[in-house]
Amino acid sequence: MNREEDRQARLELMSAIEGGSTFWSHEISVRGSIEVVQRLKSGDYLEHSPSATRRIQQSDGEALRELISNAKALVIIPGDSEWPTQLNDLDAPPIALCLRGVADLRSLALCSIAIVGARAASSYGVRLASEMALQLGERGWNVISGAAYGIDAAAHRGALLSGALTAAVLASGVDQPYPSGHDRLYETICANGVLVSEVLPGVAPTRGRFLVRNRVIAALTRGTLVVEAALRSGSLRTAADALTLNRSVMAMPGPVTSPTSAGCHRLIMEHKAELVTDLSDVLLHIGPLLAENSERVAATNPRDQLTEEEKALLEIFPSRGGTSVEKLMNLSDLPANRILALLGLLATSGFIERDGAGWLLTKQGKA
Amino acid sequence: MNREEDRQARLELMSAIEGGSTFWSHEISVRGSIEVVQRLKSGDYLEHSPSATRRIQQSDGEALRELISNAKALVIIPGDSEWPTQLNDLDAPPIALCLRGVADLRSLALCSIAIVGARAASSYGVRLASEMALQLGERGWNVISGAAYGIDAAAHRGALLSGALTAAVLASGVDQPYPSGHDRLYETICANGVLVSEVLPGVAPTRGRFLVRNRVIAALTRGTLVVEAALRSGSLRTAADALTLNRSVMAMPGPVTSPTSAGCHRLIMEHKAELVTDLSDVLLHIGPLLAENSERVAATNPRDQLTEEEKALLEIFPSRGGTSVEKLMNLSDLPANRILALLGLLATSGFIERDGAGWLLTKQGKA
Repeated sequence: MNREEDRQARLELMSAIEGGSTFWSHEISVRGSIEVVQRLKSGDYLEHSPSATRRIQQSDGEALRELISNAKALVIIPGDSEWPTQLNDLDAPPIALCLRGVADLRSLALCSIAIVGARAASSYGVRLASEMALQLGERGWNVISGAAYGIDAAAHRGALLSGALTAAVLASGVDQPYPSGHDRLYETICANGVLVSEVLPGVAPTRGRFLVRNRVIAALTRGTLVVEAALRSGSLRTAADALTLNRSVMAMPGPVTSPTSAGCHRLIMEHKAELVTDLSDVLLHIGPLLAENSERVAATNPRDQLTEEEKALLEIFPSRGGTSVEKLMNLSDLPANRILALLGLLATSGFIERDGAGWLLTKQGKA
Repeated sequence: MNREEDRQARLELMSAIEGGSTFWSHEISVRGSIEVVQRLKSGDYLEHSPSATRRIQQSDGEALRELISNAKALVIIPGDSEWPTQLNDLDAPPIALCLRGVADLRSLALCSIAIVGARAASSYGVRLASEMALQLGERGWNVISGAAYGIDAAAHRGALLSGALTAAVLASGVDQPYPSGHDRLYETICANGVLVSEVLPGVAPTRGRFLVRNRVIAALTRGTLVVEAALRSGSLRTAADALTLNRSVMAMPGPVTSPTSAGCHRLIMEHKAELVTDLSDVLLHIGPLLAENSERVAATNPRDQLTEEEKALLEIFPSRGGTSVEKLMNLSDLPANRILALLGLLATSGFIERDGAGWLLTKQGKA
């Protein structure tokens, strides 16, 4: 199956199917995206899903590509070098992801932690969330959250302050992130990280989409830290998802008199989360940073911090214009998956950037 | 061995030996207290313990009895009806206990919880400790603590406020409790509970005595609740003792920014304590109250709350003067251990009181 046909088919499926369905995930993995689109269009799933059938019959491939392009978005699918393979741990991985921003999601996610929590956070929680994100960022950890008011926003801001990358996983399209009060935050994340969504541009968030979005945050990250959460909080769902995925789940305690700490206390009480109070507790649970990234912490000249392998790969990049993984394979002795990993790391460090299906040197990469 | 000879021998041992020694505990359980005193006096332990040998050779049985009597104290030993048999769970149970106050220690301890914590408690911790003690007291639970400043004192006060009984286990003699700033609290505990010590009247507290005292608090109670504790806190020792004894260990969280919650967080983090936030969490861990006591909660006329068995036992008490367990056995169909249990419960409820080796009706019991 051609990669671009697969991408186009998945784009059409995104327009017809809600994320998080194990039924569709199973169909796609067994039959492939193209056959599922064909069967949907010919009415084979009419009984199972009349709404999906109707929607795909109305979908227009060209219009969808325009929608993506107008939103300055990128669609990645399983098998792309930027696809975070951790997502395959999910029972129902996203069919595809829409991205908007500068960071390579796969590399960002490799050394990432989720920091989530209450929208109606207390000042205690907001301060903790931004401090934890800042300190983790300074140690080389990227922060992934949901860009909601309260804890999520504080976590993104702390990460940005540290100079680390941050990704916001949205329940809406990447072109109209929710809440709109965070417009400036979204622009900053785009310029210093990436917005991620499994719905198409233009799509509004729903309660259901918030819930299935949470599993993506849990799957992308090494662990989930709940800073503050009321007893009925979406972040408890993220924690439950992380637990199911065997990721670390951590929660910060607070005064027993604070309703926004009650969800954290419940998680700890039910042994669904480990209690953590500071950076060192968190590091204990999410484990060591990948060697490549930890060496970069406190780097002076970024290029000095590259491994010999990364430097060698940079050197075979053309000084002008893009290149492809295939060309890089021909010019190096490295296997494809190693090249993909190195590309991700070089992109995270700002030496290269995506250029359509290929890659090219950034200004820093040419220096 | 005669009970009173045993008591006298243990009194002499208390004057010579520090509490908490497994060596002496073993010697006493194998040889009996009287033989251990004889061997100590004749120098058989001179090599092992020259100081204990010197002290017992200087001890004066008559003077010791006077010391106890002048302190208005009572000495109880294993086998006494008031001896809390839970203490036998310890590797080194107290040789004997000095008591001062009105409550029957055994009955009080049967439905008791330890509430302990930081001396330098925060206002948050002090409020929590007194509220938890008050609420537990209202549900029929007695509170045992160490009468220190901070959490301990707040726990005793909350218990007193609820009308529950409270016991303070001291590291000093019951006649000169430490700290002296708590003199009024001690008098209130004496009038509504009991002061407990495994050292003789006149003895000052030492660091070692505080530590071995903690195991008594842990052993007497169904569970230990640490409300606030710094990272190096004696209450963590009580928690460790309770864990060793398979008692419930509970800790309350607080702000991660509060040093007086750091010890609680550490206990939870290391899975040595369960996180609890309120009364219902605590009740979950310490289990149901004994039926006899829970029926008494919210009693109007105390006599109406007695079981038929308790009422029957009260009725065979002489209206004037004391009686003994032997006499009660003759007058009832009950076995000795059942009579002892009922006596403890009747004493806790204020219907009877100790009269030397026997028991007599209180004013309330005669009513």
